[in-house]
Amino acid sequence: MEVSDKPSAVGGPVVPRNGERRGLSPREIRITGGYWADVKTLNREAIIAHCDEWMERIGWTSNFDRIAAGDGTHAGIEFVDSEVYKLLEAMAWQLGSAPDAAMESRYLQLVGRVAAAQDEDGYLDTSFGHAGQRARYTDFEWGHELYCFGHLIQAAVARLRTGHDDLLPNVARKLVAHLWREFGPNGRQAVCGHPEVEMALVEFGRATANDDAVELARLFVERRGHGLLSPVRFGAEYFQDDVPVRSAEVLRGHAVRAYYLASGAIDVAVETNDTDLLAAVERQIETTVSRRTYLTGGVGAHHLDEAFGADYELPPDRAYAETCAAVASVMANWRLLLTGATGADDRIERVLLNNVLASPRQDGRAFFYTNTLHQRTRGIQPDDHTVIERAETSLRAPWFTVSCCPTNIARTLASAELYFATATSDGIDLHQYGQYEIDTTVASQRVRIDVSGDYPFEGAVRITFATAVGDDFRLGLRVPDWAEVGTIVRRGAETAAPSGRTELFGPFAEGETIELRLPMDARIVHPHPRIDAIRGQIAVERGPLVLALESTELPPDLEVDDVEVDPEIGLRTEGDGAQLLLRSRSPKPQSPSWPYGSAEPAAPGRQFVARLYPYSRWGNRGPSSMRIWIPAAP
Amino acid sequence: MEVSDKPSAVGGPVVPRNGERRGLSPREIRITGGYWADVKTLNREAIIAHCDEWMERIGWTSNFDRIAAGDGTHAGIEFVDSEVYKLLEAMAWQLGSAPDAAMESRYLQLVGRVAAAQDEDGYLDTSFGHAGQRARYTDFEWGHELYCFGHLIQAAVARLRTGHDDLLPNVARKLVAHLWREFGPNGRQAVCGHPEVEMALVEFGRATANDDAVELARLFVERRGHGLLSPVRFGAEYFQDDVPVRSAEVLRGHAVRAYYLASGAIDVAVETNDTDLLAAVERQIETTVSRRTYLTGGVGAHHLDEAFGADYELPPDRAYAETCAAVASVMANWRLLLTGATGADDRIERVLLNNVLASPRQDGRAFFYTNTLHQRTRGIQPDDHTVIERAETSLRAPWFTVSCCPTNIARTLASAELYFATATSDGIDLHQYGQYEIDTTVASQRVRIDVSGDYPFEGAVRITFATAVGDDFRLGLRVPDWAEVGTIVRRGAETAAPSGRTELFGPFAEGETIELRLPMDARIVHPHPRIDAIRGQIAVERGPLVLALESTELPPDLEVDDVEVDPEIGLRTEGDGAQLLLRSRSPKPQSPSWPYGSAEPAAPGRQFVARLYPYSRWGNRGPSSMRIWIPAAP
Repeated sequence: MEVSDKPSAVGGPVVPRNGERRGLSPREIRITGGYWADVKTLNREAIIAHCDEWMERIGWTSNFDRIAAGDGTHAGIEFVDSEVYKLLEAMAWQLGSAPDAAMESRYLQLVGRVAAAQDEDGYLDTSFGHAGQRARYTDFEWGHELYCFGHLIQAAVARLRTGHDDLLPNVARKLVAHLWREFGPNGRQAVCGHPEVEMALVEFGRATANDDAVELARLFVERRGHGLLSPVRFGAEYFQDDVPVRSAEVLRGHAVRAYYLASGAIDVAVETNDTDLLAAVERQIETTVSRRTYLTGGVGAHHLDEAFGADYELPPDRAYAETCAAVASVMANWRLLLTGATGADDRIERVLLNNVLASPRQDGRAFFYTNTLHQRTRGIQPDDHTVIERAETSLRAPWFTVSCCPTNIARTLASAELYFATATSDGIDLHQYGQYEIDTTVASQRVRIDVSGDYPFEGAVRITFATAVGDDFRLGLRVPDWAEVGTIVRRGAETAAPSGRTELFGPFAEGETIELRLPMDARIVHPHPRIDAIRGQIAVERGPLVLALESTELPPDLEVDDVEVDPEIGLRTEGDGAQLLLRSRSPKPQSPSWPYGSAEPAAPGRQFVARLYPYSRWGNRGPSSMRIWIPAAP
Repeated sequence: MEVSDKPSAVGGPVVPRNGERRGLSPREIRITGGYWADVKTLNREAIIAHCDEWMERIGWTSNFDRIAAGDGTHAGIEFVDSEVYKLLEAMAWQLGSAPDAAMESRYLQLVGRVAAAQDEDGYLDTSFGHAGQRARYTDFEWGHELYCFGHLIQAAVARLRTGHDDLLPNVARKLVAHLWREFGPNGRQAVCGHPEVEMALVEFGRATANDDAVELARLFVERRGHGLLSPVRFGAEYFQDDVPVRSAEVLRGHAVRAYYLASGAIDVAVETNDTDLLAAVERQIETTVSRRTYLTGGVGAHHLDEAFGADYELPPDRAYAETCAAVASVMANWRLLLTGATGADDRIERVLLNNVLASPRQDGRAFFYTNTLHQRTRGIQPDDHTVIERAETSLRAPWFTVSCCPTNIARTLASAELYFATATSDGIDLHQYGQYEIDTTVASQRVRIDVSGDYPFEGAVRITFATAVGDDFRLGLRVPDWAEVGTIVRRGAETAAPSGRTELFGPFAEGETIELRLPMDARIVHPHPRIDAIRGQIAVERGPLVLALESTELPPDLEVDDVEVDPEIGLRTEGDGAQLLLRSRSPKPQSPSWPYGSAEPAAPGRQFVARLYPYSRWGNRGPSSMRIWIPAAP
């Protein structure tokens, strides 16, 4: 590892110019093994290649070549440029964490093709403004031009933050200058139907010291909520144009749009010292977490408009819980975390491990677009060579008409370790656990820390200092909310640490190990009584992982809807999951001619023990039915 | 009332050429007062006029004029012709039950404009095949041409059945001849993406003794389920093209399509003596009723594709329960009833009173398209002058982009009394109650019966014979399933009659009155334990009516989600509804930062009594929250 000579640009996702806390760059943190090493390998070797191959094959990448050649013929829906950009962002982060000559070469080739499609004035979109296409900026509701630009800019920022100021950042500079002319203080009073460009612009402003970019982001945030977008079927709240950002009480409408906008608004608030805006968005997210979020951390209760439902409207069987909404919530919570907000790291852990990582198939070549909490019937296994609409009723699919999720997975996993830890002027805070090493500088002193343990499967997290640090050094540890209380072992002494942030102070000797012990017994979870859809049901968690019951673990004559938790509730931790005492419902299936009437007398069936495994792995053994929430016998 | 001289044509909806049981024509049954008289008046004076005015105003009616003038300019989506036809059908039934010179004149004017748009070869569609339009039959998946034809033919059948063989039946004759050439045994092997033409063709064959029409319907039914339609996003089951009709186990896919197809399949089965097909469809409907039907009789659990969910997937807050699906289920169950199937009249009652009649606003000028069972937040009141998409998150709206529901309401209410009673060779069966008179002929003998009582609000149904009948006369009475047991009072003697069909035999003297007494105390209803979404909740019914709790009946600081049924369960019948002991949830609202964890300790709030009223009336007093299913305190 080396220290960059461009400290202002190098970093991870989100580098505020203000504030005490900063994330680490790919040069400062590195995965060394365990669960996350497997995830990173899958992303590098399978997911990134899969996205690249698909887009080349179906002509999304060559859209840029055609524009460069003066041909406006376009493959795919309007905003597929964004998928190429998210792939570029994934490659940039990946290259930042591990050199790879072949990937670097491919990356540069792709960037060259993108750059060749840029118009003289900086505009760059393969769907609008060229021969045979609709004119630029004629469809802010659905055209997604600014959304695509946002993804291009984020990809450029990833390149800058990984130490390269080359072609893509220059393309982004031309584009941002165009946007400033077109949409700046004297430009069009418009916003994009899909928020995204806001956070990209702030980040670009940070990475290139471009105050216009930050100001333009601010304008976009402030313009929203004033009806600049024409009405659509789903109402103005679909794209958060119903009320000004700072006046909203909760996230609403399209879930990805909502969390992307929240991310951009936090960036603007931090960069402009707008404490009111920051407090408003933080409150909105807290309310969303407390009333509109699934156990997996997923969001989005409506398939129709991919949107939040009302408070406590959280049907497990119709959970939309789009993979991209999970990614978006990581982005927003990471931004809150950097402001010092509590709880954000707990939320990142939950949604990363239980929703983001549920999406890719174990071979990295198919993805859940939606992440249901209850699959009533065995889903359909899509074939691995066909683009499908959204896989709403199926298992993981290789590619989608709107294929936002695979590339979002790729860029998130490529940068995953950059969400693990933060540094302040006096120390290091560890937010996520696993096997990784940190090599950074705190108060001009080199600090090397090695984190180990088989987290998230085992509860012993060991933190070893590879360099000695003095008594002015602070080590912050997250004791997860799910643990309620953890145990810190330091120099043989055990101390109970309640959930939240625990701080230990130096000196730490070279080779000294701190251990955080977390309780890993499987535990029963009950829902809030206002969540109608899962009343009288329980779920099981182990450590940070939500477990699920899959029909593959049941006697062959039963599906998951044929069982309930036995009133004796027998729960035992086993391996990565748990054993739970269930009983079948008898007679099966109960089908009176009319399913409403007098109370059904309890008719206990046979007892048996079934294994529950981490939800994120479900559906990897072929079509199955699955439940996270299981009815408890009355 | 007069006896028609065209007995083969005159009748109500569905006149099988085989079978023991027949419906009555508008000349044989007449509403005389009470609840249904109010409904009929609303339909005649408001709903029919409303539909006519809207379609004239927004150019759907004048689509026909433009085609006649050689202008292919088209207002509205592809299949708005069908709305004009459903209006014509409504007018035909209405005119059949009560002469109305102004309506007759308007009817004839509209028919003239439709007829003028018919092509030489019989084809008649304002969206396809003319200047600037797509070619005929180039989009079976979404074009809806045969669907529109079906509605034209049904309107023509209504005209024939009400005693007029004039212009519209002749238009239909030319159209059916065209269809026979185009789609008959030697024609295209195709089906329409939206079933509807099947039942229309059988009925037209019956009304005009046209065997080709019946055979064509049979071909359409048999062709479906063999992949003749190209795949769509929602899968082949969306338009029931997944398996052959006779092989399916349950209704699935788009709910209106499913019940329209079932109706056509029953018609084909009856007309061709295909007992296997009839048994298959009857089984499918029974399974659908027992596992995929809401308490209101409504169907359709998914907004996205307006479709059935899986078995027992019946979320009250996302109930789609489209008004048209309710109408379609009446049509299918009426066909089953005529075959002698039991339970069909109970289902017709439930869905008519609780879903069909929930749709129109009390002034008949706005409609629910979807009929939710749980409105969490106060809906939006659409303005009365704007076409909206579907009113999914709003109160009743005046008109829709796809405006199938208002005209479906109009034609159903215009013919409602024709679903009330049937005749056999030895008697009369009364299936629905209210205030009406029957004047018909049984075994060559005139029979006049007067039915009275304030049903559905009061449980005393009185049946008075206005003519004497002999001992060979049979009077069949439905004792509703919700009643479990009724009491028959005849000549002072009381007899208990279990739910189902009860038969009384003559002689009945002129002026003799039979009374059926039904228990009208409000009652608690529990859901089947497999319906996850309403576990631990109860509903209240009174007589045939489902009651609902509306926020207008709560203390001003509470919405319906803020209350639960008090464990003491106090329920008292009151007026048309009931009083129920509730308690507030306290503290309100409970918002921990994360809504899952340990079991919530019960925190009883204050007790109070709230009134519940018939669900069908809800939302007539402005925006409110509403629940049918109310959580029962643990």
